[in-house]
Amino acid sequence: MNYYCANSSFEKAQIVIVGVPYDGTSSFRPGSRFAPNAIRENSYGIESYSPYFDKDLREKKICDMGDMPLPFGDKAFVLDIIEKFSYKLIKNRKKLLSIGGEHLITFPLIKTFANKYQNISVVHLDAHSDLIDSYRSEKLSHASVIRRVCEIVGFENVYQLGIRSLNSTDLNLPYRKENLCLFNFDKAQDFVERIGDRPVYLTIDLDVLDPSIFPGTGTPEPGGVTYKELIDCLKKLSVLNIVGCDIVELSPQYDTSGVSSIVAASVAREVLCFL
Amino acid sequence: MNYYCANSSFEKAQIVIVGVPYDGTSSFRPGSRFAPNAIRENSYGIESYSPYFDKDLREKKICDMGDMPLPFGDKAFVLDIIEKFSYKLIKNRKKLLSIGGEHLITFPLIKTFANKYQNISVVHLDAHSDLIDSYRSEKLSHASVIRRVCEIVGFENVYQLGIRSLNSTDLNLPYRKENLCLFNFDKAQDFVERIGDRPVYLTIDLDVLDPSIFPGTGTPEPGGVTYKELIDCLKKLSVLNIVGCDIVELSPQYDTSGVSSIVAASVAREVLCFL
Amino acid sequence: MNYYCANSSFEKAQIVIVGVPYDGTSSFRPGSRFAPNAIRENSYGIESYSPYFDKDLREKKICDMGDMPLPFGDKAFVLDIIEKFSYKLIKNRKKLLSIGGEHLITFPLIKTFANKYQNISVVHLDAHSDLIDSYRSEKLSHASVIRRVCEIVGFENVYQLGIRSLNSTDLNLPYRKENLCLFNFDKAQDFVERIGDRPVYLTIDLDVLDPSIFPGTGTPEPGGVTYKELIDCLKKLSVLNIVGCDIVELSPQYDTSGVSSIVAASVAREVLCFL
Amino acid sequence: MNYYCANSSFEKAQIVIVGVPYDGTSSFRPGSRFAPNAIRENSYGIESYSPYFDKDLREKKICDMGDMPLPFGDKAFVLDIIEKFSYKLIKNRKKLLSIGGEHLITFPLIKTFANKYQNISVVHLDAHSDLIDSYRSEKLSHASVIRRVCEIVGFENVYQLGIRSLNSTDLNLPYRKENLCLFNFDKAQDFVERIGDRPVYLTIDLDVLDPSIFPGTGTPEPGGVTYKELIDCLKKLSVLNIVGCDIVELSPQYDTSGVSSIVAASVAREVLCFL
Amino acid sequence: MNYYCANSSFEKAQIVIVGVPYDGTSSFRPGSRFAPNAIRENSYGIESYSPYFDKDLREKKICDMGDMPLPFGDKAFVLDIIEKFSYKLIKNRKKLLSIGGEHLITFPLIKTFANKYQNISVVHLDAHSDLIDSYRSEKLSHASVIRRVCEIVGFENVYQLGIRSLNSTDLNLPYRKENLCLFNFDKAQDFVERIGDRPVYLTIDLDVLDPSIFPGTGTPEPGGVTYKELIDCLKKLSVLNIVGCDIVELSPQYDTSGVSSIVAASVAREVLCFL
Amino acid sequence: MNYYCANSSFEKAQIVIVGVPYDGTSSFRPGSRFAPNAIRENSYGIESYSPYFDKDLREKKICDMGDMPLPFGDKAFVLDIIEKFSYKLIKNRKKLLSIGGEHLITFPLIKTFANKYQNISVVHLDAHSDLIDSYRSEKLSHASVIRRVCEIVGFENVYQLGIRSLNSTDLNLPYRKENLCLFNFDKAQDFVERIGDRPVYLTIDLDVLDPSIFPGTGTPEPGGVTYKELIDCLKKLSVLNIVGCDIVELSPQYDTSGVSSIVAASVAREVLCFL
Repeated sequence: MNYYCANSSFEKAQIVIVGVPYDGTSSFRPGSRFAPNAIRENSYGIESYSPYFDKDLREKKICDMGDMPLPFGDKAFVLDIIEKFSYKLIKNRKKLLSIGGEHLITFPLIKTFANKYQNISVVHLDAHSDLIDSYRSEKLSHASVIRRVCEIVGFENVYQLGIRSLNSTDLNLPYRKENLCLFNFDKAQDFVERIGDRPVYLTIDLDVLDPSIFPGTGTPEPGGVTYKELIDCLKKLSVLNIVGCDIVELSPQYDTSGVSSIVAASVAREVLCFL
Repeated sequence: MNYYCANSSFEKAQIVIVGVPYDGTSSFRPGSRFAPNAIRENSYGIESYSPYFDKDLREKKICDMGDMPLPFGDKAFVLDIIEKFSYKLIKNRKKLLSIGGEHLITFPLIKTFANKYQNISVVHLDAHSDLIDSYRSEKLSHASVIRRVCEIVGFENVYQLGIRSLNSTDLNLPYRKENLCLFNFDKAQDFVERIGDRPVYLTIDLDVLDPSIFPGTGTPEPGGVTYKELIDCLKKLSVLNIVGCDIVELSPQYDTSGVSSIVAASVAREVLCFL
Repeated sequence: MNYYCANSSFEKAQIVIVGVPYDGTSSFRPGSRFAPNAIRENSYGIESYSPYFDKDLREKKICDMGDMPLPFGDKAFVLDIIEKFSYKLIKNRKKLLSIGGEHLITFPLIKTFANKYQNISVVHLDAHSDLIDSYRSEKLSHASVIRRVCEIVGFENVYQLGIRSLNSTDLNLPYRKENLCLFNFDKAQDFVERIGDRPVYLTIDLDVLDPSIFPGTGTPEPGGVTYKELIDCLKKLSVLNIVGCDIVELSPQYDTSGVSSIVAASVAREVLCFL
Repeated sequence: MNYYCANSSFEKAQIVIVGVPYDGTSSFRPGSRFAPNAIRENSYGIESYSPYFDKDLREKKICDMGDMPLPFGDKAFVLDIIEKFSYKLIKNRKKLLSIGGEHLITFPLIKTFANKYQNISVVHLDAHSDLIDSYRSEKLSHASVIRRVCEIVGFENVYQLGIRSLNSTDLNLPYRKENLCLFNFDKAQDFVERIGDRPVYLTIDLDVLDPSIFPGTGTPEPGGVTYKELIDCLKKLSVLNIVGCDIVELSPQYDTSGVSSIVAASVAREVLCFL
Repeated sequence: MNYYCANSSFEKAQIVIVGVPYDGTSSFRPGSRFAPNAIRENSYGIESYSPYFDKDLREKKICDMGDMPLPFGDKAFVLDIIEKFSYKLIKNRKKLLSIGGEHLITFPLIKTFANKYQNISVVHLDAHSDLIDSYRSEKLSHASVIRRVCEIVGFENVYQLGIRSLNSTDLNLPYRKENLCLFNFDKAQDFVERIGDRPVYLTIDLDVLDPSIFPGTGTPEPGGVTYKELIDCLKKLSVLNIVGCDIVELSPQYDTSGVSSIVAASVAREVLCFL
Repeated sequence: MNYYCANSSFEKAQIVIVGVPYDGTSSFRPGSRFAPNAIRENSYGIESYSPYFDKDLREKKICDMGDMPLPFGDKAFVLDIIEKFSYKLIKNRKKLLSIGGEHLITFPLIKTFANKYQNISVVHLDAHSDLIDSYRSEKLSHASVIRRVCEIVGFENVYQLGIRSLNSTDLNLPYRKENLCLFNFDKAQDFVERIGDRPVYLTIDLDVLDPSIFPGTGTPEPGGVTYKELIDCLKKLSVLNIVGCDIVELSPQYDTSGVSSIVAASVAREVLCFL
């Protein structure tokens, strides 16, 4: 099953969708491995037309590649596959939308993009800073992923929005005073202006949304943004030169009402509108 | 079981409640047939006094007629019964609150009211425009119901609020520039003034509410209004000459926490306060 | 299992946590007896650092006493145990955070505090006024608890915030014009100024939150405050001389997504930050 | 709402049904207070004809009295009401089917029957022996109810079937060697012959069924009987002179599939066939 | 998505699978329209090899045609489509496995087979006799479907097994003494011998299974057969000349544990082994 | 929290319980990592006395060591920790009960036991043969674990009971004719006699039980044994010289009614009775 309207061939596509069904380091509530298919299924419950962007997906050339073939249990091997697989997809300057899976998948994806695009910036929407150096002595997990990303692209190139769960020490990491926007998206316009026309990778941890509208996730954190606030932020970000994006941390198993999967499918539609 | 405080006889009642347990064209998530009883049960979990309208249901004469006796499986027959049954209820100028059921029930209800009240206007609160001409070659379904209503009462007399799921072509239908309010209730006051003292039928598809507060519905759509915004809108509409109202699209089966049924019972209380 | 970071001994502790697993008068949806452990478990899913108060629980001396040993079925006996048990805990001017259980537990707790602290004020956050004189001829139930509290500490010393479910007669009870804030927390700052430096008991019925973010409770009531609005209110209240606090009415059984338990654990963290 | 076909007036009825919605001493998983209405509702999902007894409820005169009006929280008061209320119902030698509620309700019911019927025997179907002398120093709880019953009617007159959860000391209580049938219903015929034509009170704790077919109960215990085995046992017991019966310990809240409520309604139908 | 291993083209296939997602007359618990896809999905959770029949699906030529394109709401139209669509599928003597949907779909299917195969017999596995003449004055519903089938193929050619919910009058319908096997499958071998080598249509209402193993269905009825008993019965029936089969009444919405969908997928595998 | 009655110190204990919360290769429905705590919690809902074995846990010296400290994501590292950790526990000939987790944990456990006990036999209760050579090119997963075990201890020393899901090729693996008992436990007594007094490791995959009584597991398979049949089998096996045992594949997330966790806690009690 494809995401709704993503029927183009790979060759003709401007945008490529790929599922990355990995949740191997989820500590609290696993299950994001089931997210890519849940998002595809629920894309048929919403319209192809976005009134927010006044765009229709039927006017775009989108190819849904299905899911990356990932084995179970061996993290290093999985991360290596994600890196190599995504490299093939972006070779010819196609835009890539990756659908997680847990947040750790962002690490190999950004390695790929940083290889291809010099001077890349990362915009990070999330409830959690994910800046811890190691978690249970693991350097690579969903709790450390943005720390690792900072080490690749530079702390000065990572912009964080909507964070409301962090350690007090995170505030003292390099460039956090300018690049970390707590609680809301108030600095989105400022970030857009500072980034300018450099290539941008956008990573959206859906738990940036308030758990009232998005309960189906691994580590829900109250005090988040509304769906409308997320849309407003995406509108501001849409003028950036975004070359890749991921949407992570939907856990369909905790989505008892089915609303979280619909929300995730809707966010994917909005991103496809401006990618 | 009656709705709480709806103990009047039909003869003495000013307002009549009737359940319309039909969900025959629900395509995505059925079950709104169970809504009338869920709303009645949950009316006992809230107070009879509304602090929003400073009114108490115990001061009103309300009769709960129970549910219309609807057969299964034959849509044309069902719609015919709804039309005839509702006609009997409104003969003596009683106000009618119909509790769905899916949105298609609005079609025979408005046929009845349009027969009785010349020059009737329709105010439509919904996430979806329901303006599609036909769905899977069906002219009569929950996705087309407002298109059919427009054909009966005139496009110029149908006012839509809170819509956030539609096709781009919907925007070009007659009078939509003036009569369609996207995303919110900003034009409610404007509509009230333009309608003036003409008779009004109010149809409330509960999915106009954000799925965070109303997940238990057939086609949830994120980006909706809060309960407080709905109350504010109803306050503005309450000055209109409303002769009939329906509340549709609660699906108790998807209401895992039970909150959606309580919300629906509460909306019914507010409507009963000003009907 | 302790609440996260509540590892101090009773002797050294500034703040004492105790669970009060009683739900004997819950009429609609029981189960708050399971709340204390659900809150403890979910405290491990959030950080010890609160960005709202810029405080870390690891810098506080907190002792979690576990649950009070309550028998089943005999209300008078239970209330007596709560009163005596809490008296021992506050003898040496330790701050007390009690975790319910249903709202009736506030009655024996405030009896204890009113004994110890002359001139105590009560700040009450709730969706329901709980001011009914008797419910099914019971003087002591979750629906009457604040009426009983008013009789102990004086109506003029009970301040209510966020109420949206009440009887019309409640508005005429003594001092309600000044001390009852309907729908929101707008009068919080006013209350803080009027209370000054008198000792304060804070009782938080979590259903003051909107059921979108807090569905897991006995009597959900739409139209409530957001988590951010609750945080803002707590910030204002934090300057008061709060000597005791309770957090009541989480029902984990109705918390199908698990979010309500996380919210309750988060509210407890914020309270611990300023107690 | 009445149990299906229970439409007779009290005066004309041979059998009286009454709900006893009490679960005040449930320690593990409460909610049996909701059972009477769940059983009534689900009685409309099964036929009035029992192929097992070749009887149709429509040929019986049955009156459903609704639920006893029980307050919350005060056990002694509740037990007193049950005793007095049931006494009125059986004055004129009507047969009584009481629908719990938790197992403790059997205590006041048997007190009533023991008053009226000299020499009464009790047949007890259950997974648990309920013979503990006291639980958390409470003499009156669901775990001790049969011990209390034995003290009223004599250990020699209490016959237990299907027990598979007990203490080793229970085996040494008086007459248990002859009157306690572990694991199954093998001694049912033997008990019937020994009881002869004395009046019998039958108490059915539905958790005697295996939790595969009856998960919706307070303390599920694997290794139970199948529905067919229960029917076979009831057939044997049906020749007794049964003057009263109760069916207890359905907890609809734990009945996620709805099957337990249907099973309980079916067991009630079978009992009504031979009462 | 195909049923596991059903990858043959229509032309080369011996067996054709088709989904019939219709539940328009379900009165109690709808949702069987979602069954065909649930069965396909869960076929990937079981092995292709059946140890019961010592056969592997990979050795069969099976074509999964997907679902019949059915509109909503118009029963007569739906039944007509099913009849015509199935006629095309069986033209070239291919075996047909139809996956419901509700039991009413069996009516047009058997009309098709009765047209093609003179002298056809029907074997009916079900908890309910489905012999009522009309239900709420509807002649065509899931409760009357076998009565209608009897009128087409003759009462003497309809053999019923496992029935445990019926009216007392059903027992007096023609040939029921010989052709109706109550409670179990004891007469399966007898039926096989009496049918001989005539063509047979097999209709399996999955609620013939006990609700302990199959809770996810519209009208669960306790006292049913175990999965092993169903397998034993199918082994006996497998020697018949079965030309068509349907499997109906899985309601995935009530299948909270997911087990019912796995059971349905397994029954389909066993049928495919011997069709 | 300890398993009920497992309060002995390690030094004095005869039996040691350890949790192994690993589910890294679960392909279908993850979550068995949560099983150890679910089993501990539910052990307090059953009695310490087993009527099946006429033994009471209070008479045994049992130590609950809690859970092994396992990292996420790195399978090889996890298996190594399990092997080393378990080696320490069994050094002094203590009996070990390991609580999974998924079935792969049996591999490092048996490596440990095979090191210590020459000539060890393995008795394997399961629905699935787990004999596949590799799954998605992984040699080490829950689907291959018994194949790997056979390679360590010898095919002739692995006895399988209750298997009902396998490949046809499995039947031809060495010694399967004698050592593989399909569908039931009929060969249990035969196996006991052939094993004699050699040391035995017992591995119980709880999905050997029918999903009617045990739905909460990763890959449910209908046609399983009843709880009573499992008890009968354990009684036969209890005369063996069992030196270690594991209980695996409870997935509490799929245990919507809570019964599976109670069943798992009960099986653990029975094993502790005879270990």
